[in-house]
Amino acid sequence: METFSDRLMAAIDRKGCPITVGLDPRLDLMPPTLVRTYIAQHGETHRAASLAIRDFNLRLLDALAPHVPTVKVQVAFYEAFGPAGMEVFADTLREARQRGLIVIADVKRGDIELTAQAYASAYLGSSLPGVMLSPGFEADAITVNPYVGGDGVFPFVAAARSHGKGLFILVKTSNPTSGDVQNLLVDGQPLYERLASLILQWGHGTEGTRGYQAVGAVVGATYPAEAERLRQLMPHTYFLVPGYGAQGAGAADVQACFAADGYGAIVNSSRAILYAYRQEAYRALGEERFPEAARAAVLAMKEELAAVLRPSS
Amino acid sequence: METFSDRLMAAIDRKGCPITVGLDPRLDLMPPTLVRTYIAQHGETHRAASLAIRDFNLRLLDALAPHVPTVKVQVAFYEAFGPAGMEVFADTLREARQRGLIVIADVKRGDIELTAQAYASAYLGSSLPGVMLSPGFEADAITVNPYVGGDGVFPFVAAARSHGKGLFILVKTSNPTSGDVQNLLVDGQPLYERLASLILQWGHGTEGTRGYQAVGAVVGATYPAEAERLRQLMPHTYFLVPGYGAQGAGAADVQACFAADGYGAIVNSSRAILYAYRQEAYRALGEERFPEAARAAVLAMKEELAAVLRPSS
Repeated sequence: METFSDRLMAAIDRKGCPITVGLDPRLDLMPPTLVRTYIAQHGETHRAASLAIRDFNLRLLDALAPHVPTVKVQVAFYEAFGPAGMEVFADTLREARQRGLIVIADVKRGDIELTAQAYASAYLGSSLPGVMLSPGFEADAITVNPYVGGDGVFPFVAAARSHGKGLFILVKTSNPTSGDVQNLLVDGQPLYERLASLILQWGHGTEGTRGYQAVGAVVGATYPAEAERLRQLMPHTYFLVPGYGAQGAGAADVQACFAADGYGAIVNSSRAILYAYRQEAYRALGEERFPEAARAAVLAMKEELAAVLRPSS
Repeated sequence: METFSDRLMAAIDRKGCPITVGLDPRLDLMPPTLVRTYIAQHGETHRAASLAIRDFNLRLLDALAPHVPTVKVQVAFYEAFGPAGMEVFADTLREARQRGLIVIADVKRGDIELTAQAYASAYLGSSLPGVMLSPGFEADAITVNPYVGGDGVFPFVAAARSHGKGLFILVKTSNPTSGDVQNLLVDGQPLYERLASLILQWGHGTEGTRGYQAVGAVVGATYPAEAERLRQLMPHTYFLVPGYGAQGAGAADVQACFAADGYGAIVNSSRAILYAYRQEAYRALGEERFPEAARAAVLAMKEELAAVLRPSS
């Protein structure tokens, strides 16, 4: 079976960029007319919100699938709307995969033993005793929280290995207070660097033909110095890099996340792409043409990244 | 509005025990006839699994609601079955609350800023900009993972405060490898002790009339020495204590989790209660009478805890 990193890198080569678009639907930023249409039909309900999100996502997927290798779907923005929201979450994953995208379910799950097996069954592939059903919410990779240690990671690694899937473990997140826990000094070394050693250990033996493991790391673009250090510590680990665009990081900041071979990182942008129709540069398109604005924003991001990633030969 | 800790303590007083039963449905341990009935009707599908779980849970809730103050519902065992599973998760939370139980959604969510707000909206109360809908999966409290720091906790604290809800933050989990991260030494002090200081800070100002904060801690019964130390560090923090029963800890092990006033902890048991019908002691009841076996196991646990919690006067 093709490994996750080989699949991911082939998709990056095909689309010519290491971008992942974050499908984080927010009713307050989505085109107001679209949202109002569903509220008019279904009232102010979870169903109305969920249907509006479904419509928004499918139109974005059509516009973006030809241009990016992957999308990241943040489950919280669906979970907020209960079972109706989770149905649209499942639809979004399925529709994205059907369009040939590598789909990362951004779920940051982390729990012990059988509970982790249940989560692995939910997202990656059948792992529960006595259950041979397909995943409830199938994705190509998920994000994982490492706080409970190896017990919480092994079931995901096993499922990734069996099903050609991947995981990205939180190491240094992009938010302002990520240092509260992640930067605490363990024998003079920040905790996030300790996580790097654990990830190498947990991912051992999951390498694809191009050397990268199926166990990746989440490393925020908002902390470029830390990213540079983590890149040195984890030369064969794929980084999922949030923080680009709306959170403030630019192309120069993500440079350190990439390896010398020009691979090793996928850069996520959510708000700056999804809601591009609200930006000065694209406002003339109008809210109806939000997918075109999103596509234009992706193409601009592609250029920005290409400029800093181009081999200086 | 009544605070979470006051509500919780009133429920504990009413039922006369600090027990929370973990509703972790596992098809391989549930009564085989019950599971087969739904598979016969719906095939080997997510729907069959979900309906079997719903039936199992409702019968347990009827048997247990008069005897325990709270239930803890582990979402992973529902998420595994996709949207159908999440519908039964929502049903279970609703039915448990309707029976007067304090319901803890064991979701271990942890994410940044707006994402945490979305999770707060999902479980505790409306928190997203532009959205005034009821929670998609309403519970009285949730479990939270602290790895991303304060940004990931504040939205839950704000929601807890506004809606009389609570949270339990992972500190020292019950699993064998919990030390991989949680026991790393920060300036000579284990990381889990550092978490204790953060929790006191995050929970400041959420105290109920009996002194306990709405921000609690998850402290595994399998590490009694650590629990004792954490009890000293967090005298006004409620502990959610997993690890009792099937994971190996007994009544003597949880004693250290309680404060001098006899409160301060709720002890969770899942497998040993839910699947009591499989134990030697209750086997004579037969699989059909699994709710009676579960009730008997709860009453036995109540006695065990009472013996060690009785004031030594």
